Amino acid sequence: MSTITATYLVHDPKGNFEKKAEGIALGLTVGSWTDLPDLQKEQLRNHKGHVVEINELPEDTRVNQYFGSSRKQALLKIAYPAANFTPDLPAILTTVFGKLSLDGEVKLINLDFSPELASAFPGPSFGIDGIRNQLGVFERPLLMSIFKGVIGRDLQYFKNQLKEQALGGVDLVKDDEILFDNPLTPFEERITAAKEVLTATEQETGHKTLYAVNLTGRTYDLKDKAKKAAELGASALLFNVFAYGLDVLQSLAEDPDISLPIMAHPAVSGAITPSEFYGISNRLLLGKLLRLAGADLVLFPSPYGSVALRKEDAIGIAGELTEKDANWKGAFPVPSAGIHPGLTPLLLQDFGIESIINAGGGVHGHPGGAVDGGRAFRDAIDGLMLNKSLEQISQESKPLKEALELWGGLVKA
Amino acid sequence: MSTITATYLVHDPKGNFEKKAEGIALGLTVGSWTDLPDLQKEQLRNHKGHVVEINELPEDTRVNQYFGSSRKQALLKIAYPAANFTPDLPAILTTVFGKLSLDGEVKLINLDFSPELASAFPGPSFGIDGIRNQLGVFERPLLMSIFKGVIGRDLQYFKNQLKEQALGGVDLVKDDEILFDNPLTPFEERITAAKEVLTATEQETGHKTLYAVNLTGRTYDLKDKAKKAAELGASALLFNVFAYGLDVLQSLAEDPDISLPIMAHPAVSGAITPSEFYGISNRLLLGKLLRLAGADLVLFPSPYGSVALRKEDAIGIAGELTEKDANWKGAFPVPSAGIHPGLTPLLLQDFGIESIINAGGGVHGHPGGAVDGGRAFRDAIDGLMLNKSLEQISQESKPLKEALELWGGLVKA
Repeated sequence: MSTITATYLVHDPKGNFEKKAEGIALGLTVGSWTDLPDLQKEQLRNHKGHVVEINELPEDTRVNQYFGSSRKQALLKIAYPAANFTPDLPAILTTVFGKLSLDGEVKLINLDFSPELASAFPGPSFGIDGIRNQLGVFERPLLMSIFKGVIGRDLQYFKNQLKEQALGGVDLVKDDEILFDNPLTPFEERITAAKEVLTATEQETGHKTLYAVNLTGRTYDLKDKAKKAAELGASALLFNVFAYGLDVLQSLAEDPDISLPIMAHPAVSGAITPSEFYGISNRLLLGKLLRLAGADLVLFPSPYGSVALRKEDAIGIAGELTEKDANWKGAFPVPSAGIHPGLTPLLLQDFGIESIINAGGGVHGHPGGAVDGGRAFRDAIDGLMLNKSLEQISQESKPLKEALELWGGLVKA
Repeated sequence: MSTITATYLVHDPKGNFEKKAEGIALGLTVGSWTDLPDLQKEQLRNHKGHVVEINELPEDTRVNQYFGSSRKQALLKIAYPAANFTPDLPAILTTVFGKLSLDGEVKLINLDFSPELASAFPGPSFGIDGIRNQLGVFERPLLMSIFKGVIGRDLQYFKNQLKEQALGGVDLVKDDEILFDNPLTPFEERITAAKEVLTATEQETGHKTLYAVNLTGRTYDLKDKAKKAAELGASALLFNVFAYGLDVLQSLAEDPDISLPIMAHPAVSGAITPSEFYGISNRLLLGKLLRLAGADLVLFPSPYGSVALRKEDAIGIAGELTEKDANWKGAFPVPSAGIHPGLTPLLLQDFGIESIINAGGGVHGHPGGAVDGGRAFRDAIDGLMLNKSLEQISQESKPLKEALELWGGLVKA
């Protein structure tokens, strides 16, 4: 039988977890069971939820102090028949974490899709391999940078900033996620200006750079805007998926007329993920669900900066995005924030080659400007791929040397 | 200048709140300020965020114990120029709580829309008055009930359950939010079956009952489905808005071809609202934002049941939905879960006449069945409007007497 199996972390004063789990399995499916006549049981058998596993965890003094009374903890695994819902994420989320999300201390940790159900979701259209093919870069992590301070600036400012980033050897440049459609740098003009700049820089250097334009506006206008972006020659879409909905991402990914990689931004996801007691785990929300809904690249806070995820969470997200056994193409993990060239060995160690190194201040804040900022990263990455140390590379690369002097990083973590 | 002003609750180990607030105001707008040349300051002045107010709160020992170190608390109010974003909720949420939601302990408590910005949002199309006009009921709270255990059951079961609820004098009946489109009770057949049942019961009793069908499926199919529902004679739409997105709700509300009241369900919102440290306040998310996006009726957990909100939160949501000074029509508050007839005086006291009394088990679980279940509520409501006490009413109403005996409630809380 096709099912979805949810894993919940629950904190409960009573801790009668068998009863609690059974209450969830029934309450979110057929409602009641033991008192039903046999004939009705027969009718409803394929719709009834099942408790798969109950795993009690030790109590945590800190948690008990916070609530002012004892809280038993457990992981509950409950399977819901796919017969109860249509194979779309709104129906699935409403089933497994609709009413339940409102019922005390319960956090949704994981969802396991049975193969039949998984096949209803597209996954990335391009994925890691598709993006590598577009760039012709296969043997190293990609390098991405971000526009900075573009709000209130004109198109010339935008073009200059893009040009510098591209000349530094960056593979992808993304819009700032808070840059919306605006009179100074309208959506369509950004796309055509970027195409012009990036065609010119590629002719000059031979290096190809993709530009991810921020797809914003009203939900029901997004498809037309995305198609227009594709027509005008945008190379990717940046999308604030959590300000819209996972199902919107899926529809954009599935539309054959929007043939562009989609870069999912984690904006607003921090309203859902950080609590120990409530919400949805980072690994599930930013990892598995974004991949199956069709994100080709996923940004998430790196474990190194001031806006940081726990390392376990960041690596967990990357694992979900790249796991080989999944039904879908792999999506690029893009650990972001607080990244400078000195961190490249650590990034490689934690996230491997199938990842994107993404920097804002770490490119624009370079003493030699954004060109040298990109160059410092590229030199570091290219050298590390040849098994050189940062110290060795920095002896041949002035941009890297300057970056390491400014931000540190000669000592490998 | 048109702005949106956000109020955040922050917990910070350092507690240098002036610096923190300034960092947010700049970081989410123009990026940097003090080092800019005067000419650029002039260009960017209308785009710069402003700290409006900083209100330090006393430390909380329980919170400090939980984090294992001191956490200073404060409410920060920051104004963002509307020039920075398009007037849609995804752009607003990304601006005021995009990256910031990922930055440590920060909860979004409120958003104040300047009048110009507020006018971009439709609010309810029908609102309290529109729904009262449809029903012809003006002088009492409305009564609503919910289908129970309909998953796996056929259309005849659905029709019987609807008929009983309508015969009990219920004003609105809503689908279970976990009932999706399915072969046994397909969306369109539910609507036509409900119309047939409710036309017949109205002819029999003279009492009109509305049916809210659950609008589900893929985001980009919703408008067509909603139009079809209107054509087929549905009287309202139930919508799991937090499994989709606030902007989708707004588009449904704005579409002139979908002329149906929309009932917003709080499913999945518990992933966002309950933490003391993170997420978005109930009052803002379920109150103000649902109203301005166009919900005509809003369900939220009542403060009385096992799945409960704090009373302050529940009343805060209702206040936002009905506040007279707002730019929008009022939306009906529907405090739900744990409601039985004995609670009607308390519901009236807490939520007033401009609210909907909504029960599932409190109707279906009546010893005399759902007809008596509805009748017990209606007798209680009608009697209370005549300034009778529940005890007095129960002497004339057998259904109410039985309900009070089963669930209690003769003593006014």
